[in-house]
Amino acid sequence: MANDREVTIYDIARELNISATTVSRGLQDHPTISKKTKKKIFDLAERLGYRSNHFARSLRNQKTNTLGIIVPRLNSHFMSSVIAGIENAANEQGFSLLIAQSSESSVKEAASVRTMFDSRVDGLLVSLAVDTAELSHFEHFFKKNIPVIFFDRVMPHENSVNILIDNRQAAYNATRHLIEQGCRRIMHLTAPILQNVYKDRLKGYKEALGEYKIKFREDYVVITNLSQEAGAEVAKTILKMKTLPDGIFAANDTCAIGCMLAMKEQGIRIPEDIAFAGFNNDPVTQVIEPHLTTINYSGYEMGQVAARHLIDHVRDVSFVSSTNTIILRSELIVRASSLKKGRK
Amino acid sequence: MANDREVTIYDIARELNISATTVSRGLQDHPTISKKTKKKIFDLAERLGYRSNHFARSLRNQKTNTLGIIVPRLNSHFMSSVIAGIENAANEQGFSLLIAQSSESSVKEAASVRTMFDSRVDGLLVSLAVDTAELSHFEHFFKKNIPVIFFDRVMPHENSVNILIDNRQAAYNATRHLIEQGCRRIMHLTAPILQNVYKDRLKGYKEALGEYKIKFREDYVVITNLSQEAGAEVAKTILKMKTLPDGIFAANDTCAIGCMLAMKEQGIRIPEDIAFAGFNNDPVTQVIEPHLTTINYSGYEMGQVAARHLIDHVRDVSFVSSTNTIILRSELIVRASSLKKGRK
Repeated sequence: MANDREVTIYDIARELNISATTVSRGLQDHPTISKKTKKKIFDLAERLGYRSNHFARSLRNQKTNTLGIIVPRLNSHFMSSVIAGIENAANEQGFSLLIAQSSESSVKEAASVRTMFDSRVDGLLVSLAVDTAELSHFEHFFKKNIPVIFFDRVMPHENSVNILIDNRQAAYNATRHLIEQGCRRIMHLTAPILQNVYKDRLKGYKEALGEYKIKFREDYVVITNLSQEAGAEVAKTILKMKTLPDGIFAANDTCAIGCMLAMKEQGIRIPEDIAFAGFNNDPVTQVIEPHLTTINYSGYEMGQVAARHLIDHVRDVSFVSSTNTIILRSELIVRASSLKKGRK
Repeated sequence: MANDREVTIYDIARELNISATTVSRGLQDHPTISKKTKKKIFDLAERLGYRSNHFARSLRNQKTNTLGIIVPRLNSHFMSSVIAGIENAANEQGFSLLIAQSSESSVKEAASVRTMFDSRVDGLLVSLAVDTAELSHFEHFFKKNIPVIFFDRVMPHENSVNILIDNRQAAYNATRHLIEQGCRRIMHLTAPILQNVYKDRLKGYKEALGEYKIKFREDYVVITNLSQEAGAEVAKTILKMKTLPDGIFAANDTCAIGCMLAMKEQGIRIPEDIAFAGFNNDPVTQVIEPHLTTINYSGYEMGQVAARHLIDHVRDVSFVSSTNTIILRSELIVRASSLKKGRK
């Protein structure tokens, strides 16, 4: 069947009774081809389902007007906000998006990088998988000077820009708030510490304890995958402890909420017995009772900033090497889950 | 810089001092080329960052081992479960995924279809934007016999398969449950009715009312974008009504929860004053108090089934035309938000 064969410029040339060179030039918006002929060529190309030859086109100008996005998971409010922000900036500038998820696996991340490379994206926005320890799988992008920007889960690299919040400061603020509310036995629920976000949040937690001369205890740091189920599991373990903690700072809201629900079921009063603080300001923080104290930072803005920078790089407006790191604002939002001393 | 130029088979041929034909054959795993030479070619191609020429390759065997996914939004628990299910099935069979979101706009949907077409995906999985009224933007896929499968938000087409649940039956079950709990003034919160899912849910709602001889009232059907904010807005409107409804069936959980939170703030008791039922069984239904009665159906399974069917079509194991529609199971989950008569 004719339908199974790829449509070429020769098919278009034959049907319009013009040369293949004219078709090729027309498709490339060459100035020697008249508007009328260009329209004829484009209309027929569209009708026949001609697919622009990325290979040939990329030899000419290296652009496909497509940005690639690789994220650990698509199932969080934060990540869907980031993608909405990226989309807003990309639309403004006429770029399409191709998205892939690594499912928190560096092996899948490398495969996605390859797929994006083969799809000839003009640039890449990446938030790293939890077990990614180095960046060699991005070498083809770096070598070809195709810009790569890392956001949220980042790793320093001379050929890329990092966009993130000050995780250490945010975690310090949350922990200090719990201490100021009277907590002295504060546990920290987090993820494997390979990634900057968790490393820095742990640092901020320790720093606040240190400032108030509260001894850091290894057994008060619990490493999980930060899912709601993991939060419920941790609750079980905690409830078996001889002395209960009086505060919990979780590295995300989902895990905090799983833990809170399981504790409430067992009659623990929040915040009277145990105060809670999370991270991300997911909408669910205002559904849970009591509402959850958390760190707010705008995924939408992070996505917008990341995409705008990437597009500037793609267009050579700026160079990756001149900017290294962009830090976005975050803020502590105090709600009932941590207010042991009542509202001020 | 050499780095800015696309690497070609001629570069590989020159460096290895062999012919371009040999390189081309080697890359295509041609039997006339020795294993040793193939290894040399692949190693160098990898090192130089050679990108396989999709165009030439597709002329040969039309396969890129990539599936395209286009969904309205990536910000729901349901959609991230679907994508996890698709990913599971795709991984098993060695396929990568490229994802795009239409942001509920048929115009963006058409642009994403085009991007997927240019990326030469082997097949397409689509859940339609809320304002998509016809399928002409998929014509290039249909014409070329590249399989397209629609899931959840579907539209019948002779060249594609639809995978969905029986939305009419599910909505009938939810509404009948509210009636059995004593509700007589039941409102229905839904989205614009272009799409099958909302059309069929409205049908099921009407059917249950009819069965119990409860008069259908146009003003009891509220069309919104089904966001949490929209739910809160609807609550305000409802609270101004002369006679309050005694039951609300929302076409998704997010909107139901927005409405519940706003009503609770105004002192409305749930379920005593107004009973609630939602749709989707999002995790947040078990965070809200009282827990929300809802319709459960597995996004993960829907994604798996859709991807497996698509891959079968890509491999010509089955033909799209022989299967038309696949209906997956759904169930009513009764929780405290609707139990006016107490637990049975």
